[in-house]
Amino acid sequence: MLLLAASLLALSAIAPPDASRIARNYRTRHEREIVSEFMDLLSIPNLASDIPNIEKNASAIAAMLERRGAQVRLLRLQGVPPLVYATLPSRNAKTTIAFYAHYDGQPVDPAQWATPPWQPVIKGEGGEARIYARSASDDKAPIMAMLAALDALKSANASPAVNLKFVFEGEEEAGSPHLGAYFDRYPKELTTDAWLLCDGPVHQSRRMQLYFGARGVTELEMTVYGPLRALHSGHYGNWAPNAIVTLTHLIDTMRDTEGRILIAGFYDDVAPLSGVERDALAAIPNIDSDLKRELALGRTEGEGKSLNELILQPALNLRGFSGGHVGNQASNTISTEAQASIDFRLVPAQTPEKVRERVERHIAAQDFFIVHDTPDAATRMAHTNVVKLVWGSGYPAARTSMDLPVSRRVANVISEATGVSPYLLPSLGGSVPMYLFQRGGTPVVGFPIVNHDNNQHAANENLRIQNLWDGIEMFTALFTNLR
Amino acid sequence: MLLLAASLLALSAIAPPDASRIARNYRTRHEREIVSEFMDLLSIPNLASDIPNIEKNASAIAAMLERRGAQVRLLRLQGVPPLVYATLPSRNAKTTIAFYAHYDGQPVDPAQWATPPWQPVIKGEGGEARIYARSASDDKAPIMAMLAALDALKSANASPAVNLKFVFEGEEEAGSPHLGAYFDRYPKELTTDAWLLCDGPVHQSRRMQLYFGARGVTELEMTVYGPLRALHSGHYGNWAPNAIVTLTHLIDTMRDTEGRILIAGFYDDVAPLSGVERDALAAIPNIDSDLKRELALGRTEGEGKSLNELILQPALNLRGFSGGHVGNQASNTISTEAQASIDFRLVPAQTPEKVRERVERHIAAQDFFIVHDTPDAATRMAHTNVVKLVWGSGYPAARTSMDLPVSRRVANVISEATGVSPYLLPSLGGSVPMYLFQRGGTPVVGFPIVNHDNNQHAANENLRIQNLWDGIEMFTALFTNLR
Repeated sequence: MLLLAASLLALSAIAPPDASRIARNYRTRHEREIVSEFMDLLSIPNLASDIPNIEKNASAIAAMLERRGAQVRLLRLQGVPPLVYATLPSRNAKTTIAFYAHYDGQPVDPAQWATPPWQPVIKGEGGEARIYARSASDDKAPIMAMLAALDALKSANASPAVNLKFVFEGEEEAGSPHLGAYFDRYPKELTTDAWLLCDGPVHQSRRMQLYFGARGVTELEMTVYGPLRALHSGHYGNWAPNAIVTLTHLIDTMRDTEGRILIAGFYDDVAPLSGVERDALAAIPNIDSDLKRELALGRTEGEGKSLNELILQPALNLRGFSGGHVGNQASNTISTEAQASIDFRLVPAQTPEKVRERVERHIAAQDFFIVHDTPDAATRMAHTNVVKLVWGSGYPAARTSMDLPVSRRVANVISEATGVSPYLLPSLGGSVPMYLFQRGGTPVVGFPIVNHDNNQHAANENLRIQNLWDGIEMFTALFTNLR
Repeated sequence: MLLLAASLLALSAIAPPDASRIARNYRTRHEREIVSEFMDLLSIPNLASDIPNIEKNASAIAAMLERRGAQVRLLRLQGVPPLVYATLPSRNAKTTIAFYAHYDGQPVDPAQWATPPWQPVIKGEGGEARIYARSASDDKAPIMAMLAALDALKSANASPAVNLKFVFEGEEEAGSPHLGAYFDRYPKELTTDAWLLCDGPVHQSRRMQLYFGARGVTELEMTVYGPLRALHSGHYGNWAPNAIVTLTHLIDTMRDTEGRILIAGFYDDVAPLSGVERDALAAIPNIDSDLKRELALGRTEGEGKSLNELILQPALNLRGFSGGHVGNQASNTISTEAQASIDFRLVPAQTPEKVRERVERHIAAQDFFIVHDTPDAATRMAHTNVVKLVWGSGYPAARTSMDLPVSRRVANVISEATGVSPYLLPSLGGSVPMYLFQRGGTPVVGFPIVNHDNNQHAANENLRIQNLWDGIEMFTALFTNLR
């Protein structure tokens, strides 16, 4: 009966709940095949730097797409992992929606894994059954879910309501160093009416969520200097400058213990949230007290504001501080230098360039002479304080309006398919180079399907299989209901 | 002629210049023997922890003393290096002077040495000829110089004007962990009218110097806490407390960039310098601008005060700071903890106990809950900030008045023997446990003989042989002119 309904509906719209049902029906009859195909894909090692294996991943995914009738090409730049690019036109459709995911994974430390990272195994039962393997969640799961969704549609003789494009990247975990170049080199292929970025986890409560932006990021290494050689602290302490103290004081001029950035003008470009964004934020449950317990925190930064609010602000995070030695390695010396590593998170309208300019102006105003290469002795002697600043490249924040028709449409499809509204995040706290996808003002919506407790980037990464099943339903609903 | 004069003088006083001359005369005729005997001693490895070899050193030195007619005993505590203890009574002398040195040396990294550390070699010529070996300077040189001085006296048929005691320690470089216990166990043997501590280098200008005190020391390891597990800085930054920032701010409440300690009451016990000490200080040449150039310093701490002045103040030195990772190891995370290591240098009237109490009161006032063991999650959750403080044992400063007859006497003997006043340091900047020797108010004067550029504690330690010759003259003059 369902099958019949589906094939009739293929010619017109299939409402999201029906699409979901089609997918579920298909899935329950093909669970073994889906899991088996997925485990084959997970068996191919997928470090971006491991070119032979990364090519095998690309070929495997290309073949999987071709089996579903998509037109596939591997877009190439010299010597780097290819973009797997596939199109699946829909008759009479005027709209093209591109779905992005990545097939490379984080480096692994096999010693930390309970089972080898590229030998997928299933553990647990029922709703908690999980597949353990590198990239089981991040980010091969959405690829598998999309492909199974195409199978589900075909089984119901239904077709997508829009022209589909699939773009699967092979070096996201290496920082997407060539994604910009790919956009430059293949503008036609990478043009779409909207992007869905299928990466990241669903909400901790297991509710679906969409994100409409991401913070930008830029990194800074700061090194300050003491004496040219390490000195005995008894014979020279109080006189030879202590580089560690020079650096703690510099850091404290930049950021307070509440996370507030003290650099003049740093917040000037920060756009306030729109009304829609504020409302969306208010609808997201506050899990802060659970998190505080889980993390054993006696306090939080941000003067009592919620986590959801705070990650929409710029941030200055101290990633590391190193000078001299502590514990058993400590000796009574004055060190030659001290180093700190910072990541800045940026919000819309802030750019790495502007941040760099303001930070350098601030540091210079603290009586530091700024260099960008290791200073020689003459330079160190010539200035009260010398700091070496080494900036990472970084990229800006991105934000798609939650008011756009496509934004509302994606939210509505998920809402109707699941019977419950997804949480709408104005932005991720983390950074993904969404700005590249947004070129020319293309809307970009983040749509994650995997469980939040997937050990992303760590050992024993896993995918809760129910999240894969749910993902198949969501993609089926999206393919048939976007326009 | 000289010899004749010396044997006559043996019965009465031998003025310092004559004693010097006797020593020089003896030395010039026995250079090879002296150096040969010294190199034999330097050939015995002398890590305090290497008990078989440290015992060989003690036996060798005991035999060397016995050959000079001293009564020798090895004072023992179970399982630790012995104190080599020798007496050489002087007929009719009422005064006893004890000379301290140590026969153990710093650990070595043979890869860093040009020649093996316990295979002494001579390099250089004339006044710059040096013996390269571990402990060539620190601190077997004074032992050799004292023994050769006894030979010089004997060759002139002269005898010391005071009862001599020699006390040579075998674990000074391990921090003298049992010296206090030795003083407790052997009070009679370790009683003297005054101590001469023969350790450390002469002034950088090669002028002789005496020191009348040493700073005390106590060490502190501070650990502050962030989340129970490392967090993604994008997803949790601005909300989860950054332990590195917590610690930089705590440190900055404790010490400024001029070396000033900001802890309430920290300077309360600091005794001002006496008039004699201030005068002595004024007589020591200021080598700060040379040092600034040598160390490539663009500034110094202490608001323009000289190094000599500043090392007479208490100090708070950051020995190390460690949290997260920097450079290539840095990742965008919020660390679980950050650690800093501090050494405090103390001046007379300050004690480790008082320092500890004031520091803990200060830290508690910054809204930190203090623990001394690693806190559990419940403790971390229960307090705004938690800090673990682990104190080293430490010991207090010591200071002998420069006005005492014995203080003046030692200075005068050196002055007359060399024809130029030695520099008088109210205190070393570094820490040696002089307070143990000072028990019961015994005067303690530090008298070093070795070159300042001896690579003390490092690879390629060396002794400028001329410093050994000068040392023999000085000890001959001291032995015959103290009373």
